[in-house]
Amino acid sequence: RARLARLILSTPFQRAVIGLILLNAVTLGLETSESLMARHGGLLRTVDRALLLAFTAELALRIYAFRTRYFRDPWGIFDLLVVGIAWVPAAGPFAVLRALRVLRVLRLISAVPSLRNVVDAMLMALPGMGSIMLLMGLIFYVAAVMATKLYGGVLPERFGTLGDSLFTLFQLMTLESWAEATARPILAQEPRAWLFFIPFIVVSTFVVLNLFIGVIVESIQS
Amino acid sequence: RARLARLILSTPFQRAVIGLILLNAVTLGLETSESLMARHGGLLRTVDRALLLAFTAELALRIYAFRTRYFRDPWGIFDLLVVGIAWVPAAGPFAVLRALRVLRVLRLISAVPSLRNVVDAMLMALPGMGSIMLLMGLIFYVAAVMATKLYGGVLPERFGTLGDSLFTLFQLMTLESWAEATARPILAQEPRAWLFFIPFIVVSTFVVLNLFIGVIVESIQS
Amino acid sequence: RARLARLILSTPFQRAVIGLILLNAVTLGLETSESLMARHGGLLRTVDRALLLAFTAELALRIYAFRTRYFRDPWGIFDLLVVGIAWVPAAGPFAVLRALRVLRVLRLISAVPSLRNVVDAMLMALPGMGSIMLLMGLIFYVAAVMATKLYGGVLPERFGTLGDSLFTLFQLMTLESWAEATARPILAQEPRAWLFFIPFIVVSTFVVLNLFIGVIVESIQS
Amino acid sequence: RARLARLILSTPFQRAVIGLILLNAVTLGLETSESLMARHGGLLRTVDRALLLAFTAELALRIYAFRTRYFRDPWGIFDLLVVGIAWVPAAGPFAVLRALRVLRVLRLISAVPSLRNVVDAMLMALPGMGSIMLLMGLIFYVAAVMATKLYGGVLPERFGTLGDSLFTLFQLMTLESWAEATARPILAQEPRAWLFFIPFIVVSTFVVLNLFIGVIVESIQS
Ligand code: NA
Ligand code: NA
Repeated sequence: RARLARLILSTPFQRAVIGLILLNAVTLGLETSESLMARHGGLLRTVDRALLLAFTAELALRIYAFRTRYFRDPWGIFDLLVVGIAWVPAAGPFAVLRALRVLRVLRLISAVPSLRNVVDAMLMALPGMGSIMLLMGLIFYVAAVMATKLYGGVLPERFGTLGDSLFTLFQLMTLESWAEATARPILAQEPRAWLFFIPFIVVSTFVVLNLFIGVIVESIQS
Repeated sequence: RARLARLILSTPFQRAVIGLILLNAVTLGLETSESLMARHGGLLRTVDRALLLAFTAELALRIYAFRTRYFRDPWGIFDLLVVGIAWVPAAGPFAVLRALRVLRVLRLISAVPSLRNVVDAMLMALPGMGSIMLLMGLIFYVAAVMATKLYGGVLPERFGTLGDSLFTLFQLMTLESWAEATARPILAQEPRAWLFFIPFIVVSTFVVLNLFIGVIVESIQS
Repeated sequence: RARLARLILSTPFQRAVIGLILLNAVTLGLETSESLMARHGGLLRTVDRALLLAFTAELALRIYAFRTRYFRDPWGIFDLLVVGIAWVPAAGPFAVLRALRVLRVLRLISAVPSLRNVVDAMLMALPGMGSIMLLMGLIFYVAAVMATKLYGGVLPERFGTLGDSLFTLFQLMTLESWAEATARPILAQEPRAWLFFIPFIVVSTFVVLNLFIGVIVESIQS
Repeated sequence: RARLARLILSTPFQRAVIGLILLNAVTLGLETSESLMARHGGLLRTVDRALLLAFTAELALRIYAFRTRYFRDPWGIFDLLVVGIAWVPAAGPFAVLRALRVLRVLRLISAVPSLRNVVDAMLMALPGMGSIMLLMGLIFYVAAVMATKLYGGVLPERFGTLGDSLFTLFQLMTLESWAEATARPILAQEPRAWLFFIPFIVVSTFVVLNLFIGVIVESIQS
């Protein structure tokens, strides 16, 4: 077991895994081309299946070698999930899972130390931002309830339900067509609606900028 | 009175209040669903009314326990306002007040210490930004008067009145469709209008970025 | 002369000037309302004329009191310009000057010390940004010449002349409808145009962010 | 040879080169005007050709004087490329190269020390950002494969091929019309598509902001 662990942690093994992930990235990319799939679809699918088996075997080896330690590393869980997706029968309501197979390529993050460090640094900064995220969620929820009640009748496709309103408010926060497609049509019927839209835009962009800059400052400092 | 104050500041009491606010958040969210209102509208309204009574009683207790100290804390005034809204008769011109009842959920900010600290830090940074905000207001006012005079005749729905111009300039500052929907239609008739729009965009985005980053830097430092 | 200088620098005099500027801001704002102009246009114009005379007299006093020192302060020149605009006969090709009278309200910046300090700090940071601004100008010029040659025939209203291209590139840099209104119509005819648009957007937004953040960092440090 | 090197590095020589580049910038700008080309096209082309010869001679002198040292300076390679473009026969598939002649004006960057320092500082910060750029590329590739599979059938002009998807995702990252032109049309057919679009927008804008701010912080520190 210790010998297996040493093998798994050895540079050649790590490089081989990275190589297989990159190969899989290429085959999954080629699968998006209909003309290539028409000519070489069988080959691409066979390679993909072989790589899935290889990754599954690799993860099985890791779990055998490191046992519970494997599951204590979040990246271990991550690897297991993105590889495991391909084993869920992708039929009927789960057809979307076929498209999720490409998430497997994100294993590069856990396999390449420099990528893992960058992502770890960003994720490590998140807990310190918990309060601002909670505040953001609260502002969105309150604004969505208000917008649904106030403008659900005016623009039902944008503020008809709480879900519609949350999506529209997210769009407003990104400033995407906030005036042309949302605020101006409502202002035409409710001249005081700017009292809702302008404060929401000022507050939400400010809080989200605060959140982004907070995370970046913390992740640069660490 | 001192015993009452101790009760109010005790953890179980604080938790109960937070629980009731969260419960109210859920019922107010459910009220946005027409199908739910059709089936359980009576129940939702009764719970909401009961929670309003509970919050009113809670604030009455706080005022009785802390007396003038209560009113010296801005969050006390805030709580009083967002709960008090529901007592204003929401008829005729005040129908919009029904939608404002959900602001009550923002009491979470004053009730959860970590949220209150984040908001306090942001608000504390505002006074130091007074001059930049004044500058921003001055720039907007001057630009709005100019735009109304220069382009009020060309695009009356955007620059017809001082109010229209202020809203349109706010939209320009957020860069939302500034060229497609505003500057290009005017340039088609006034080829020199870029002498107004480009400086306004450069200066206003620069000043607002200055303002946002200033507040964030001050609130991170504190 | 020394006594006059002391009078001009005294708090009551400064406050009176600020008061007159604010009064003028109000009258200039009211002038944008057609209904108000129809009823009280004569009064508003009289007040405006009186204030112009007052400001002119004030500047004359300042120049008399401080002589060449007055002209060595950039804010002195600024005051002279924004007040002087109103004395240019605003007829024929200069009709636009009537709208520029409102610039006079910007004298608040030179009259209120805290505003002047904020603007001074921002302007002081500009020289240190000279190289980046030159770089920005160079990138814009080169990109505009290229775009005019490459896409002037495809979208003449956006890239027909060097001036059109410069305006369109400025719009691209602000990310306003860059894909929907500009890049996608061109890509439909020139499939490789993304080799121009994506690098331009990446480089220009990066350089302008660099410029903005550079100025803000320098002005916060000072 | 040493004397030649001293001549090339002398201030008058450097100034002369800068002067010629600026002159060329003007003639290349004038070439974009059809009316000017109709009247003075011959003159402009002659000047341009003469300047090309001058720049070629200058680079030949530099290479003769500094030999291999010339090629070890990346700016030397840069100068060679942007001047060399004009010597490629610009016919048939290479007609676009005529428009690239203006890149020659970018030699100002290598010729003006302050510009070169600014660009050097920015480029020097790039290697430290290698991991974040790799992460960005990985996220884009994975998201593009997924989007092509999931939405290629719904909006083929935006997600039909891997290339289309990459361009559309770049547009989404800049927040340009992400909801109006891309997400909302897809949501109308695939109500769960927000599970793709909102995480992609949050993650990609966050990572790109991280990248930009990282480069700026490093280039300000150095
Ligand atoms: Na935008
Ligand atoms: Na837009």
